[in-house]
Amino acid sequence: MTATPSEGPGRKAVLLLTCPDRAGLVARISHFIYERGGNILDLEEHVDVEERHFFLRVSWSLERFTIPATDLDVAFAPLASEFGAFWKIRLSGRRVRTALFVSKYDHCLREILWRHSLGEFDIEIPLIVSNHPDLRPLAEQHGIPFHVVPVSAPEKHEAELLQIGLCEAAGIDTIVLARYMQVLSPRFTERYPGRIINIHHSFLPAFVGGNPYRQAYRRGVKIIGATSHYVTDELDEGPIIEQDIIRISHRDTLDDLVRKGRDLERLVLARALRLHSEHRILINGRKTVIFD
Amino acid sequence: MTATPSEGPGRKAVLLLTCPDRAGLVARISHFIYERGGNILDLEEHVDVEERHFFLRVSWSLERFTIPATDLDVAFAPLASEFGAFWKIRLSGRRVRTALFVSKYDHCLREILWRHSLGEFDIEIPLIVSNHPDLRPLAEQHGIPFHVVPVSAPEKHEAELLQIGLCEAAGIDTIVLARYMQVLSPRFTERYPGRIINIHHSFLPAFVGGNPYRQAYRRGVKIIGATSHYVTDELDEGPIIEQDIIRISHRDTLDDLVRKGRDLERLVLARALRLHSEHRILINGRKTVIFD
Amino acid sequence: MTATPSEGPGRKAVLLLTCPDRAGLVARISHFIYERGGNILDLEEHVDVEERHFFLRVSWSLERFTIPATDLDVAFAPLASEFGAFWKIRLSGRRVRTALFVSKYDHCLREILWRHSLGEFDIEIPLIVSNHPDLRPLAEQHGIPFHVVPVSAPEKHEAELLQIGLCEAAGIDTIVLARYMQVLSPRFTERYPGRIINIHHSFLPAFVGGNPYRQAYRRGVKIIGATSHYVTDELDEGPIIEQDIIRISHRDTLDDLVRKGRDLERLVLARALRLHSEHRILINGRKTVIFD
Amino acid sequence: MTATPSEGPGRKAVLLLTCPDRAGLVARISHFIYERGGNILDLEEHVDVEERHFFLRVSWSLERFTIPATDLDVAFAPLASEFGAFWKIRLSGRRVRTALFVSKYDHCLREILWRHSLGEFDIEIPLIVSNHPDLRPLAEQHGIPFHVVPVSAPEKHEAELLQIGLCEAAGIDTIVLARYMQVLSPRFTERYPGRIINIHHSFLPAFVGGNPYRQAYRRGVKIIGATSHYVTDELDEGPIIEQDIIRISHRDTLDDLVRKGRDLERLVLARALRLHSEHRILINGRKTVIFD
Repeated sequence: MTATPSEGPGRKAVLLLTCPDRAGLVARISHFIYERGGNILDLEEHVDVEERHFFLRVSWSLERFTIPATDLDVAFAPLASEFGAFWKIRLSGRRVRTALFVSKYDHCLREILWRHSLGEFDIEIPLIVSNHPDLRPLAEQHGIPFHVVPVSAPEKHEAELLQIGLCEAAGIDTIVLARYMQVLSPRFTERYPGRIINIHHSFLPAFVGGNPYRQAYRRGVKIIGATSHYVTDELDEGPIIEQDIIRISHRDTLDDLVRKGRDLERLVLARALRLHSEHRILINGRKTVIFD
Repeated sequence: MTATPSEGPGRKAVLLLTCPDRAGLVARISHFIYERGGNILDLEEHVDVEERHFFLRVSWSLERFTIPATDLDVAFAPLASEFGAFWKIRLSGRRVRTALFVSKYDHCLREILWRHSLGEFDIEIPLIVSNHPDLRPLAEQHGIPFHVVPVSAPEKHEAELLQIGLCEAAGIDTIVLARYMQVLSPRFTERYPGRIINIHHSFLPAFVGGNPYRQAYRRGVKIIGATSHYVTDELDEGPIIEQDIIRISHRDTLDDLVRKGRDLERLVLARALRLHSEHRILINGRKTVIFD
Repeated sequence: MTATPSEGPGRKAVLLLTCPDRAGLVARISHFIYERGGNILDLEEHVDVEERHFFLRVSWSLERFTIPATDLDVAFAPLASEFGAFWKIRLSGRRVRTALFVSKYDHCLREILWRHSLGEFDIEIPLIVSNHPDLRPLAEQHGIPFHVVPVSAPEKHEAELLQIGLCEAAGIDTIVLARYMQVLSPRFTERYPGRIINIHHSFLPAFVGGNPYRQAYRRGVKIIGATSHYVTDELDEGPIIEQDIIRISHRDTLDDLVRKGRDLERLVLARALRLHSEHRILINGRKTVIFD
Repeated sequence: MTATPSEGPGRKAVLLLTCPDRAGLVARISHFIYERGGNILDLEEHVDVEERHFFLRVSWSLERFTIPATDLDVAFAPLASEFGAFWKIRLSGRRVRTALFVSKYDHCLREILWRHSLGEFDIEIPLIVSNHPDLRPLAEQHGIPFHVVPVSAPEKHEAELLQIGLCEAAGIDTIVLARYMQVLSPRFTERYPGRIINIHHSFLPAFVGGNPYRQAYRRGVKIIGATSHYVTDELDEGPIIEQDIIRISHRDTLDDLVRKGRDLERLVLARALRLHSEHRILINGRKTVIFD
């Protein structure tokens, strides 16, 4: 891991860690930081009492840190090993390399690109992948390479290999499905565990699968929703990151649901991407722990 | 139908009507009221464009009405018949006779009784029916007859006959299941079409059936909900009247979900009962039209 | 008024009307439409009981209308005059000519232009006016003339004359202040009564005037808001069209408030513009009646 | 401070602390707990970057604690003194002694008493004080002493002395103004800094002072709110604990605002009391830090 200087008032590090619960975890980890000259900026922890599992996010200033940030992983490894922890340390200035997958709808892509231009996400976007050419002009407007990979049923396998190749060549860490209308195979999703973010246009687990607005319209619900979640090999079953809703009434047509839902989709996906890019999410089985 | 004087500034009538759409419906119905000296206080209509169906709620003052309110049904019948309409006229001062069915949880019952004491509903409550004795003191505090009808699997049929008998003897129009923990048989529900209101403690159609909070907790949703709906012979599938939600997080235990959900349940059920008691709801297949 | 054919299933008309309340208003107006072959698609009325004032919005199909749509105003005038009504009839296909006023922030402008491209508003945008050149590229991308009118304190009068000239030349009906950072003089606002829409970045009447996010941050509120209202000659005191809010916490910095508020501003302004462009708003003194 | 055994799975302690920010605070405090055998259950910290101030809430299990809980204050004092901290340690099982002040409205009192009976608050309620006798039956139903202290303008001073006397005799820590309709004098409020909780029936700082629903109705807002805050000697200006809102429309009368607002008031006040009773609030000047 190579640290690059961060923007802002100073460089900092973020540790995300989860392990079986035991006494002394916070004390020993905060001491690890303190004795190396780090000043904790933010610390939040959570204990899943049922599963007796511990979750932690802590960020600290590297301004007076006495070891090089690049040595942090090696220095922390023995402690993590003792705790039996899953963990990662991220340094500010190292943005998450993110690929956006899209089809024809522009609203989620447009929202992410606009917010990205305002600096709302801690990401880089080296490429956009689509199974249709429609959104190329939008990508070009932002100067981002746009790759069309058509996906047809018989050759889906080949298409996915090509997509994976593109992502690997670009050093992609995280993939955002910004209303990408194809289901990824387990072969694909297992390669990016906890690193593919989808937006589903319903309040999951209501209206799993296709045409959720039509399903909602027919059922006569009074509220519709959108759900952003990590993609696993079970359709619409991955850990939920963020959800939101909007009221509807009998006066709303199916088109009104689509229109109102668009606003939900782009806001919910943007919030999920922001949380992910700031390393605020740990996965806990089928759930997420969000340090917000 | 016997009209009794209403409280408030004056007596009024409400017409709820639905029929196939055609030109002139509003003109002819509003003319019917106008030519008899009625002043329209509130009129809302809706056209289901897909089904080409018309829905109307209109209320008017009877202060200078030139025919007795008790003759209204007879006077309006020819017009309704011409339109092929399903309709009803309700006079202020005639409160909806409502039975409350409960089990052990007190929060919905308590909420309804308190609001009722403030005059929030246009109802009378001649009886409360329960399969457990626990809530008797609360009923007695409000001076409402409380009937315990135990429900055991083999004798469910007998229990329902007894419940129906109690309701019929009391001239019950509407039944509110205020966290009543038994499923009613089709024999029961078909006797009160569009007149049994249930509260389900999830955001339907998510988490149909038993233990919805546990289901929500296990799925890791970020929002929980409650749904009030009319009861049909399909469990949790009746027309939805009202829904609402509340945010939760990974910090919330199952007990927290139950606690937060209680607030939703009682508010959502109370809103649904208010809408029903003010004759603001028409059923449109599996959906509702709410004139709010 | 020249009618042009509307998109969609057929041409229609919308009447917005307000007058002192009296018996027979709905009957006589709906009869006016019915006897000329119109089929009412949507009718909503409201009576302000305190002020004894009547408000109506009714839309109807012109498909089998027996008089030319262009004769509607003349045909309806006698009835309106009898009622002492303020009223207007709008025909579908005649989009509201709307000018957008902006300064440097792009989020509201971008939102309106994107939604406009999706057909969410019933408007045309013949020009964008700004006191800064920054947003010219965005305007040009959408092919909309962009006029820079610098506003300096001593020559504000001249600047407003120029702005008015531009609007009149373009036949502008409605002006949207999409985070336009100048206060308009009464001379300007009185020329467009009920036709200038502003977005204020607070939950009015909290935090009137400048820097509302800073005011909110200092006060330590737990919720921030945005308000869209018609502009009158009293700053931030015009009739409110739409408001919405978002939760904040002690963790949110002033920058976070600005970021979260941006989402509110653009959504609230867009909803207000949509309501206005569909002729769903009547002004009632310092308030609005919204037929939604 | 005398510790009593807590209900639940085991005894625990909560530390609330605020001091100027410096390196090592979390490390040293968590070490203090760890080296005495405490297992941290929950830790949340916050740094006010502008004011360079540190805020912490940490709770830990006392099951294997090696010093008596009653010695905790003495043991922690030197560390707190070194940090220049304002702090308090609370032991589970020691409920907050809370007085409820009411006038004639029952909804907030009823809500608190009901939730209290369900165990939602970590409080005891040794007395209820009112300037009117109306709510005595409700208090008696819950077996809580009810004191009527009439408050008239000329003898307000005497009334407050009597109220203070009642509170002191009962060892009251916290006072909840549950729609108590009198303004407390600075003499009173300064005696309970950060320990008097009020509910104001508006979205503060909008509609400060009397009749906020009437003010909201006249202004034509589209959303109303309620605010719970600590009472200081400036009316409606104390640190805000919790706020919430509900949508209204032109159809809502002033009575509807009062009715809808009631639901907000009781929920918002209940949430604030719960946060306070669980020692989740630190005051930061005019603001609060809420560890939720």
